[in-house]
Amino acid sequence: MELDAELGERAHDLDRAHVFHSWSAQASLDPMVIAGAAGCEVWDFDGNRYLDFSSQLVNTNIGHQHPKVIAGIKAQADVLATVAPAHANLTRGEAASRILARAGDEFSKVFFTNGGADANENAVRMARLVTGRDKVLSMYRSYHGNTGAAIVATGDWRRVPNEYARGHVHFFGPFAYRSEFWSDSPEQESERALHHLERVIQAEGPAGIAAILIETVPGTAGVLLPPPGYLAGVRALADKYGIVLIFDEVMAGFGRTGDWFAFQNPELNPEGVVPDLITFAKGVNSGYVPAGGVIIPAWIAEAFDDTVFPGGLTYSGHPLAMGSIVATLDAMAEEGIVENAARVGRDVIGPGLRALGEKYDVIGEVRGVGVFWALDLVADPVTRSPIGPAEMATLKKALLSRGLLPFAADNRIHVVPPCIVTDAEVERALAIYDEAFAEYSAR
Amino acid sequence: MELDAELGERAHDLDRAHVFHSWSAQASLDPMVIAGAAGCEVWDFDGNRYLDFSSQLVNTNIGHQHPKVIAGIKAQADVLATVAPAHANLTRGEAASRILARAGDEFSKVFFTNGGADANENAVRMARLVTGRDKVLSMYRSYHGNTGAAIVATGDWRRVPNEYARGHVHFFGPFAYRSEFWSDSPEQESERALHHLERVIQAEGPAGIAAILIETVPGTAGVLLPPPGYLAGVRALADKYGIVLIFDEVMAGFGRTGDWFAFQNPELNPEGVVPDLITFAKGVNSGYVPAGGVIIPAWIAEAFDDTVFPGGLTYSGHPLAMGSIVATLDAMAEEGIVENAARVGRDVIGPGLRALGEKYDVIGEVRGVGVFWALDLVADPVTRSPIGPAEMATLKKALLSRGLLPFAADNRIHVVPPCIVTDAEVERALAIYDEAFAEYSAR
Ligand SMILES: Cc1ncc(COP(=O)(O)O)c(C=O)c1O
Ligand SMILES: Cc1ncc(COP(=O)(O)O)c(C=O)c1O
Repeated sequence: MELDAELGERAHDLDRAHVFHSWSAQASLDPMVIAGAAGCEVWDFDGNRYLDFSSQLVNTNIGHQHPKVIAGIKAQADVLATVAPAHANLTRGEAASRILARAGDEFSKVFFTNGGADANENAVRMARLVTGRDKVLSMYRSYHGNTGAAIVATGDWRRVPNEYARGHVHFFGPFAYRSEFWSDSPEQESERALHHLERVIQAEGPAGIAAILIETVPGTAGVLLPPPGYLAGVRALADKYGIVLIFDEVMAGFGRTGDWFAFQNPELNPEGVVPDLITFAKGVNSGYVPAGGVIIPAWIAEAFDDTVFPGGLTYSGHPLAMGSIVATLDAMAEEGIVENAARVGRDVIGPGLRALGEKYDVIGEVRGVGVFWALDLVADPVTRSPIGPAEMATLKKALLSRGLLPFAADNRIHVVPPCIVTDAEVERALAIYDEAFAEYSAR
Repeated sequence: MELDAELGERAHDLDRAHVFHSWSAQASLDPMVIAGAAGCEVWDFDGNRYLDFSSQLVNTNIGHQHPKVIAGIKAQADVLATVAPAHANLTRGEAASRILARAGDEFSKVFFTNGGADANENAVRMARLVTGRDKVLSMYRSYHGNTGAAIVATGDWRRVPNEYARGHVHFFGPFAYRSEFWSDSPEQESERALHHLERVIQAEGPAGIAAILIETVPGTAGVLLPPPGYLAGVRALADKYGIVLIFDEVMAGFGRTGDWFAFQNPELNPEGVVPDLITFAKGVNSGYVPAGGVIIPAWIAEAFDDTVFPGGLTYSGHPLAMGSIVATLDAMAEEGIVENAARVGRDVIGPGLRALGEKYDVIGEVRGVGVFWALDLVADPVTRSPIGPAEMATLKKALLSRGLLPFAADNRIHVVPPCIVTDAEVERALAIYDEAFAEYSAR
């Protein structure tokens, strides 16, 4: 699209007049207009360019406007944009088989949805139906989406005004830097978090618990890497009590951690435990067309061989979305994009952010893997008290004014570029973070 | 796509192996493979062609593969497929302003979602927040989507295994042919249905009721046209008790009834009453890219000017979806597609189906408007007892074997072609329905 300041104004004015925004008070919004994007960059109508280290909502894993994905969408658009889910469609089958090839032999079918929230809705439904139980356990520090069950499974503030679903119970997950368990090491944090989870299970009554739903790596809550033994411990508890274990890989999946799925990452899950259900969205097609879904093992799929599965949606397995998935997964494989995320995280982002952490007191903790990092920002490195909204606004402005589009949440900057990010782009970003923190610290 | 029987087999095999289907027992499925489509036709890889009188899930209002919409999607794909909802985007603003222009002056903003279910989730959320009340009233004969609140607001069997949301109350809507009110005319049905609704409101406690959520024309439940005075009566009750009135126009909107919105159709709503919130999906872009949303009046939008709206989703206002909306609404206007739906319904479909109704005892009632019709099929015209699944399967096969893809639900055939359907296509379809009913009646 042509760059033209008037178009930018029109975009801004139409937005303010007619677009109702998510998770916001509407009056004070002053959204940045994005005119176009490519790879790790976005730009506005005035020609300002930004390094996109947000991946938007941590979804453009393949970067913006990847030519193979755009070509895949256009080719599918020429053939067939939409059919009803009841009909079979070749592209849908191709997408399902590619997703299953990445998920592993334990899984046999995919139920497609429009995004992450409805993926979790349907995974929870399956767990309830196969167990005949009601309750769903999930973490206080989590986000699982915005619809009825997904928002109440969510653990953050967004759940509170939306509590109209029943059967949801929350527990604390491990987070050594801000422990709820008075632990003094990641190992102890893991052990105590597992003890806590088992006590919640026992106190809630295991015979009534259908599912444990966790983000393999809680993302929006702060990129909370599971400490040693935690995932294996949760798997063991699920087995012990006959509970369906759901890993929400909506944000963590499809390259973000440097593996196809976060649970396949040997740093995060050295024991290699496998969940019963996986939910996905975002990275599966980088969000070029809305899509998500549930990856299902044979034993759960077969439970619905002769029993009706009571769930569905108009755009389940939507051909255009499926075309974008096929193109994305093929391009990611051909171009070694997941491997790039692992390497760049290990060799460039990790060391670079850790050096900043050494340099600036405001950076309380640096944590992450692949292209999935968080800087936990503190007013006081000893008490670890989080910095406030005004400080965050100052930092965001400092980053934006230097041409970096950040991802900010609570007292954190999440460093979450596309998986295709180059060493040079990371170096550019690191220099910008450095300058911004220098300015911040000098104020 | 090339026609090739082997590709058809591959599509079928991949589907059976790896695709988990909506609302079905999986083992017995034998889905039809759709290879391609154009206008009112779909075809498989063997070259069999079908007149699509289902519009898939009653969503392809503009027909399949409309060249202007495909071009719009491809053009947007070249510019920008996806951005986060927090950023402004020109195409999103253009889509919102076009939708608002059709909805009327009472409305000022649009909140975009991925489909119909999450549109209803967010409308219900808004109603609860602006009223400070909990309960949501909806009809037993209704479908509102598959997520937490939407599925429990739904009134049909699909709700029953999914009852994990609280605050939902159901009432009977009017349906003169199968009255729940012992009525003997549409006027009496309307009056008694309003009496029943008011009694439910009073008995549930008006001070606790946030919303009345109704399909302007209940669609999946059987194309149940509101009888004289009903919509105006519901509006009056909502006003009397301070309840937010939500019209779910996911299926009925964007041309289906021969008007842009069903509530604007003078046959259905001669009093011209207006709801507080409108939910939409399907016809807004014929489902070429997953999209839906809520149309919001200023008074509700402004309630969130300084208060955070606690709802959102990754793909709210997704540029590719927005591009398809802009192209669809422009093409529908330029080509008089809504007017065509009105005319063809009045002059061709209505008279044709009524003639079939006269001819075959199995057709108990013919009802509809625009391209939104149902044949209510009965084993006995006096008791009106519905025909069973075996009879429906026979009829479906008779239609498919003659090259017509029907929409079947319970004991009904819904006659729901795209809004672009031509007189000649309707005549062809009517001849097929005629033959199929003749064969059925002779068996
Ligand atoms: C872990 C996780 N689950 C679910 C969701 C919800 O996905 P969506 O916004 O597509 O509904 C998100 C979105 O951020 C997420 O991060
Ligand atoms: C009236 C109505 N509301 C809501 C929905 C749900 O829409 P979706 O399947 O896009 O979630 C439907 C779908 O058929 C519908 O007909």
